Amino acid sequence: MKIKPLFDRVVLKPIQNENKTSSGLVLAESNAEKPLLAQVITLGNGIEADGKPVEMQVKVGDKVIYSRYGGIEFKLDGQTYVIIRQSDILMVLED
Amino acid sequence: MKIKPLFDRVVLKPIQNENKTSSGLVLAESNAEKPLLAQVITLGNGIEADGKPVEMQVKVGDKVIYSRYGGIEFKLDGQTYVIIRQSDILMVLED
Amino acid sequence: MKIKPLFDRVVLKPIQNENKTSSGLVLAESNAEKPLLAQVITLGNGIEADGKPVEMQVKVGDKVIYSRYGGIEFKLDGQTYVIIRQSDILMVLED
Amino acid sequence: MKIKPLFDRVVLKPIQNENKTSSGLVLAESNAEKPLLAQVITLGNGIEADGKPVEMQVKVGDKVIYSRYGGIEFKLDGQTYVIIRQSDILMVLED
Amino acid sequence: MKIKPLFDRVVLKPIQNENKTSSGLVLAESNAEKPLLAQVITLGNGIEADGKPVEMQVKVGDKVIYSRYGGIEFKLDGQTYVIIRQSDILMVLED
Amino acid sequence: MKIKPLFDRVVLKPIQNENKTSSGLVLAESNAEKPLLAQVITLGNGIEADGKPVEMQVKVGDKVIYSRYGGIEFKLDGQTYVIIRQSDILMVLED
Amino acid sequence: MKIKPLFDRVVLKPIQNENKTSSGLVLAESNAEKPLLAQVITLGNGIEADGKPVEMQVKVGDKVIYSRYGGIEFKLDGQTYVIIRQSDILMVLED
Repeated sequence: MKIKPLFDRVVLKPIQNENKTSSGLVLAESNAEKPLLAQVITLGNGIEADGKPVEMQVKVGDKVIYSRYGGIEFKLDGQTYVIIRQSDILMVLED
Repeated sequence: MKIKPLFDRVVLKPIQNENKTSSGLVLAESNAEKPLLAQVITLGNGIEADGKPVEMQVKVGDKVIYSRYGGIEFKLDGQTYVIIRQSDILMVLED
Repeated sequence: MKIKPLFDRVVLKPIQNENKTSSGLVLAESNAEKPLLAQVITLGNGIEADGKPVEMQVKVGDKVIYSRYGGIEFKLDGQTYVIIRQSDILMVLED
Repeated sequence: MKIKPLFDRVVLKPIQNENKTSSGLVLAESNAEKPLLAQVITLGNGIEADGKPVEMQVKVGDKVIYSRYGGIEFKLDGQTYVIIRQSDILMVLED
Repeated sequence: MKIKPLFDRVVLKPIQNENKTSSGLVLAESNAEKPLLAQVITLGNGIEADGKPVEMQVKVGDKVIYSRYGGIEFKLDGQTYVIIRQSDILMVLED
Repeated sequence: MKIKPLFDRVVLKPIQNENKTSSGLVLAESNAEKPLLAQVITLGNGIEADGKPVEMQVKVGDKVIYSRYGGIEFKLDGQTYVIIRQSDILMVLED
Repeated sequence: MKIKPLFDRVVLKPIQNENKTSSGLVLAESNAEKPLLAQVITLGNGIEADGKPVEMQVKVGDKVIYSRYGGIEFKLDGQTYVIIRQSDILMVLED
């Protein structure tokens, strides 16, 4: 089964907070309700309903930080995913 | 009797959550108030009231996940349907 | 006395819920606060106040389902009517 | 003293609800907080502040139904009037 | 000292309610929190911040009725004035 | 240290209310939470983030009245300043 | 690990309030919930999702004052950062 987000939406797979990982990324625990780390799983086609193209600036595999407020959670095969408009993704983390 | 949604609206028939279906899709029970699975039954003509065309990116028969907040429920012959703007459909699931 | 709605407004005459009608349409009783069935009585001229034309996609006699939130009720000769913007009409039912 | 509404505003003189008038119009008493009947007294020039023309679709003398929410009441010589944007007038009643 | 309102703003000097004046204008006392009578003292240049021209439809000396909600009061030499966007002035009263 | 406001923002230095000054300006004490007197200290470059030019209608040294709601206070060397969008400045006072 | 903000977003590193620094900047303690001082760490590419270019008026290393309301905090390697749209940055401080 394949997931095809509509428009500029992006499906994310949340990444558990890692303490002192090799990458050095630490999202503070007290911050758990704040921005969250996730990986991009799949993207919409970047065409809005009114036909306007949206520039997709994230790509599959990117690690991103997003605000919990913008995303909607759903589950597939026991895994939790988040679907979100690209404009609610805050930043990309690059190694 | 035929249903003709106006503008970019889409009529959906909700699909009961299936546990461990052949398709592998599982929407968690605890998630029941969150996004919902449904099948597209019929579409509006994709012309907005102001005459602007809307690109209909879903088609009849598509399995979609939508947010309960965007849809309005109604019943026809005892079956519950949901009418929703296409822009409130989150994603299409493809086999 | 003739009613002339302004702009894109539509005057509807609500139809009582019928149980198991020949048309097969049943709006569930528990649904009474939800979308409602009505017949289109008369239409505005489809010209917005700023002069922009609106495409009137419903016509006199159409059976429509509308959301109670968008309509305003009034009475004429003891009959209740609803006036509503066309964009708040959800769908047309065709025989 | 002459009243000159600005822009697309319209001055209305509310009409008391009449029971079973010759015109047949009856606004139900229980409806008193709902749409109201009034007569158009005078109109703005139909030019918005930004210079855009507005099509005035009501004219002096028209009987109209308007929503109480959109209007602001004022008194002149003991008579209550209502000033309202044309877009908050719902419909015109024609004999 | 001269007051120069910015953009489309208008400075008004409130006029006390007069009972049965020669002009015939009476704003009801019970109406004190509702629209208010004032005289136009000075006008902005009618150029919005983005450079768009605004058509100033009121002029110095005009008697106007405005809604208290839109205006901001200030005092100069013990006199209370109101500064308001022209679009929040409801109407001009002409003798 | 120099302050450079972004876009159409303006930095103001509040002026204490003076009673019966030579200029004749008196902002009533009871009015302390209402519009406030200040002097323009420095201006943004008048270019919005989207590249659109804004016409700066105030200049350094101008005495202005602004609404407290639109401004954000900060301190530099013990002096309180206010930063505000030009569109929230109500008027300029000229001698 | 590199942080790449999306669109017109800016990553800031908050600067502790310094009392009477050489630069003379003092943000009052009582002001702690008000605008905050920070240094620009990295910038988005200045291309909005719809392809429109945004003029980035801040640059890496700039000391800026921003409103806490517009920013979202996150932590990386124990350091707190703030991500914010450029339009919510109030001003740049120059030596």
